[in-house]
Amino acid sequence: MSKTNPGNFFEDFQVGQVIEHATPRTVTEGDRAAYGSLYPTRFALPSSAVFAASVGLDQHPVEELIGFHIAFGKTVPDVSLNAVANLGYAECRFHQPVVPGDTLSTKSEVIGLKQNSNGKSGVVYVRSTATNQRGEVAIEWARWVMVHKRVPADSTADGAPETVIPDLAKAVDATDLIVPEGLVFSAYDFTAAGEPHRLEDYEIGEKIDHVDGVTLTASEHQQATRLWQNTAKVHFNAEARPDGRNLIYGGHIISLARALSFNGLANAQVIAAINAGAHASPAFAGDTVYAWSEVLDRTVLEPGSAEAPGIGALRLRLVATKGRDESMTLRGEDGKYAPGVLLDLDYWALIPA
Amino acid sequence: MSKTNPGNFFEDFQVGQVIEHATPRTVTEGDRAAYGSLYPTRFALPSSAVFAASVGLDQHPVEELIGFHIAFGKTVPDVSLNAVANLGYAECRFHQPVVPGDTLSTKSEVIGLKQNSNGKSGVVYVRSTATNQRGEVAIEWARWVMVHKRVPADSTADGAPETVIPDLAKAVDATDLIVPEGLVFSAYDFTAAGEPHRLEDYEIGEKIDHVDGVTLTASEHQQATRLWQNTAKVHFNAEARPDGRNLIYGGHIISLARALSFNGLANAQVIAAINAGAHASPAFAGDTVYAWSEVLDRTVLEPGSAEAPGIGALRLRLVATKGRDESMTLRGEDGKYAPGVLLDLDYWALIPA
Amino acid sequence: MSKTNPGNFFEDFQVGQVIEHATPRTVTEGDRAAYGSLYPTRFALPSSAVFAASVGLDQHPVEELIGFHIAFGKTVPDVSLNAVANLGYAECRFHQPVVPGDTLSTKSEVIGLKQNSNGKSGVVYVRSTATNQRGEVAIEWARWVMVHKRVPADSTADGAPETVIPDLAKAVDATDLIVPEGLVFSAYDFTAAGEPHRLEDYEIGEKIDHVDGVTLTASEHQQATRLWQNTAKVHFNAEARPDGRNLIYGGHIISLARALSFNGLANAQVIAAINAGAHASPAFAGDTVYAWSEVLDRTVLEPGSAEAPGIGALRLRLVATKGRDESMTLRGEDGKYAPGVLLDLDYWALIPA
Repeated sequence: MSKTNPGNFFEDFQVGQVIEHATPRTVTEGDRAAYGSLYPTRFALPSSAVFAASVGLDQHPVEELIGFHIAFGKTVPDVSLNAVANLGYAECRFHQPVVPGDTLSTKSEVIGLKQNSNGKSGVVYVRSTATNQRGEVAIEWARWVMVHKRVPADSTADGAPETVIPDLAKAVDATDLIVPEGLVFSAYDFTAAGEPHRLEDYEIGEKIDHVDGVTLTASEHQQATRLWQNTAKVHFNAEARPDGRNLIYGGHIISLARALSFNGLANAQVIAAINAGAHASPAFAGDTVYAWSEVLDRTVLEPGSAEAPGIGALRLRLVATKGRDESMTLRGEDGKYAPGVLLDLDYWALIPA
Repeated sequence: MSKTNPGNFFEDFQVGQVIEHATPRTVTEGDRAAYGSLYPTRFALPSSAVFAASVGLDQHPVEELIGFHIAFGKTVPDVSLNAVANLGYAECRFHQPVVPGDTLSTKSEVIGLKQNSNGKSGVVYVRSTATNQRGEVAIEWARWVMVHKRVPADSTADGAPETVIPDLAKAVDATDLIVPEGLVFSAYDFTAAGEPHRLEDYEIGEKIDHVDGVTLTASEHQQATRLWQNTAKVHFNAEARPDGRNLIYGGHIISLARALSFNGLANAQVIAAINAGAHASPAFAGDTVYAWSEVLDRTVLEPGSAEAPGIGALRLRLVATKGRDESMTLRGEDGKYAPGVLLDLDYWALIPA
Repeated sequence: MSKTNPGNFFEDFQVGQVIEHATPRTVTEGDRAAYGSLYPTRFALPSSAVFAASVGLDQHPVEELIGFHIAFGKTVPDVSLNAVANLGYAECRFHQPVVPGDTLSTKSEVIGLKQNSNGKSGVVYVRSTATNQRGEVAIEWARWVMVHKRVPADSTADGAPETVIPDLAKAVDATDLIVPEGLVFSAYDFTAAGEPHRLEDYEIGEKIDHVDGVTLTASEHQQATRLWQNTAKVHFNAEARPDGRNLIYGGHIISLARALSFNGLANAQVIAAINAGAHASPAFAGDTVYAWSEVLDRTVLEPGSAEAPGIGALRLRLVATKGRDESMTLRGEDGKYAPGVLLDLDYWALIPA
């Protein structure tokens, strides 16, 4: 019997099945530096231990997306090695900041299955949970992927499992957002953070063009993807695709767009939840990526005053595009994503209120 | 009103104005590793905690240029986002070593202004100071940049500010050099450091060809530049230049040349001051960079003996070239930089005496 | 006299000579992250501090190859700067794990010399020892390289040194393998480690195709090689070779193949010894590298039980290829390495038994 992992196929999943993913991973200050060399991030909280302490945190968290990518990467060999496409995310909540020294492990429960009518693949829904070395939940999320069948059936769907589609929220309710223990914005230093804008300065429906573009390189996305121990072949093996080009890991685009969004959203310091996400089209080395954001909602979690800000939550749509689109158009008249849209990410960020 | 930072234009600066730059940044061991992956540095002091302790330091400093690039990077969004060119540096002194755990913040004071006769741009002189988490000065320097005007005037210079040109020293006086607290070379290990040469072995006027060349790659200079949170578009966005090529960050060439200078200057362990610097021509991925040095001056700061070296200071011109120039020619007969010269950096280094 | 290091030529070596190599190097968590960004490594022990503690280690080691590459890199400026080829390795043993905070220094003793009959070069055999800041041996190994003569002699071999060929073992004897202090596999977590296979599951002669391929990039191999302070020009200077292509550092291929071997050898957690190694052909950016392994031997070092595994040692041949060779052919009928074979590495790994 082969000793290597062929990955799971659609037939290998059952609703209720729990998969403990391999390779726990300790986060270090080295990850913070590597992340900073790969993404133009300048958010004051993960950049500065002094700033983190000034907002009440007793340790210096890394970017939320470092934790997310690591936790996510663990699920790839078991869940999506034979994936056709990563279809969506939902109900992702960050339960507590990840700090250097934390060791993350991930497990996933299969929460839904739907064989496609072509009999060749099916959609697998999983809820994944990353825990730290104390067994506490750090991050949880749901995602669904289209996975090849080992043995394609004909279209009569003989032997297909019962279709179960989980009931996933369109967005995390603001009342379910978790504020990191100790976080206070009452002594928030807007000068150090780089912008004066607070929750109240953002209007629902407002769009922000983040201006700057970054040209993707082959080495950088591979280094990032490897850092998260993500093994999907299409990112590393130019021979694995007919066009000889490596596909950029979708999470690379998420991190890049989030970093670019500093310019206009410098005070959206903490990602509290990811409501939904779609990778609208693939990206390749040589593409120049820009980002824009749309304010979808805003709410005060802990009231403050002019002098001593409280904590607010801003629900944002973060859009990455190939080439700059100053019109900030998400979809064409046909309802499809506009050409050039790479990513449509809906998330909640904490910001002084 | 736009929430994004358009950068300052020439009209936005006034002499005496103080700008507190955003995003304090904590330096970590991750930065040391990232730096070591990007530059072929082998100086024993930043390489080895044991060596650092053997020369009297109670913590293990990172390369001086890590501190400089981080501190410098913070000034870019406020000072040089709309720069035409970075014209020069002066009076840069390293007040104390930067060690992992230090958090650097930078502020700048405008110390001079001169509108150009074409009315389209002007020169802005700033003195910048980086302080650590204890509020102590870590690094200070002056630089001047040519910045676009927001609204170009005609050549009559209507509305131009009064011209103020600061009096900047051609070089930091040796008596103003700061020796890091505790530094002693009395038990200096020349074998571990890699070369036997002491201050006395270098003659004023001597030139040293550092032999080795490094071919620049697009990923590496971007990773370096990002690590310093330097946001200048020309380094990241291939669409930002008509030729579709990213300009290599000048500081990348400084760090590369300094690292190459190990071969012949292995004992020039500590950069104490930068007297002047000019980026003579731009560099691009694919260029192969070499370096040579010229000894400009030397002085004993703390006398030693044959057995127990003291501390000396070597004033060096560090020249980076595109392609190797074994003749080590700085300028042609016309007084202009010779073709191929990328960098002309004048600095003081501490070395066993 | 030139202050720069021209490297040693064949004439500069004498049997019995001891060379203390320059630049001690402190290993940090930054190195772990950099390594993880450059190689797709997922072995649980170096990935997770929690896993390391669960197998009895009181500190969190980095990959053995990080220590090896750093220790090896130090020998390059003195031993192989003028090398024609790196011919082989033998008797490499890892005496104790390298952990962040350790400072490695390396010295080498010349143990053999043989001038080539063409009079232009000769083979130099050295035994190198890396010690940590406590003066304890961390790693030792022998290697032999072909080095240019400074002054080529005619084929009469006038003035050639007496030929001394050291007696090097074909493989480290299993009884000489060193188990890291404290290491126990009795509570080994196979789920966390990613595979269920123990020593007994591997048959002598068994071959394992590690499936995945990685396309090499210019930036990545340079960053890796620099991280180890390896100064060999052919890796960095595209002008140093007629074809304008940088040669990939052989150690890069070793690390890449070892990381790929996780898929099928996930429990081969600790490299205990390297018996032999040959770089069969050069690799370049753009090549896609695959790996396969062959089980050469196996032995129980500390007996265990089904519930509480002991410690076994697996002797493995690790082969890296350019392009995938599912037939896993090492040599052609002519006895030469099959086309596409890049690396043939013979090593011992510790695995639950």
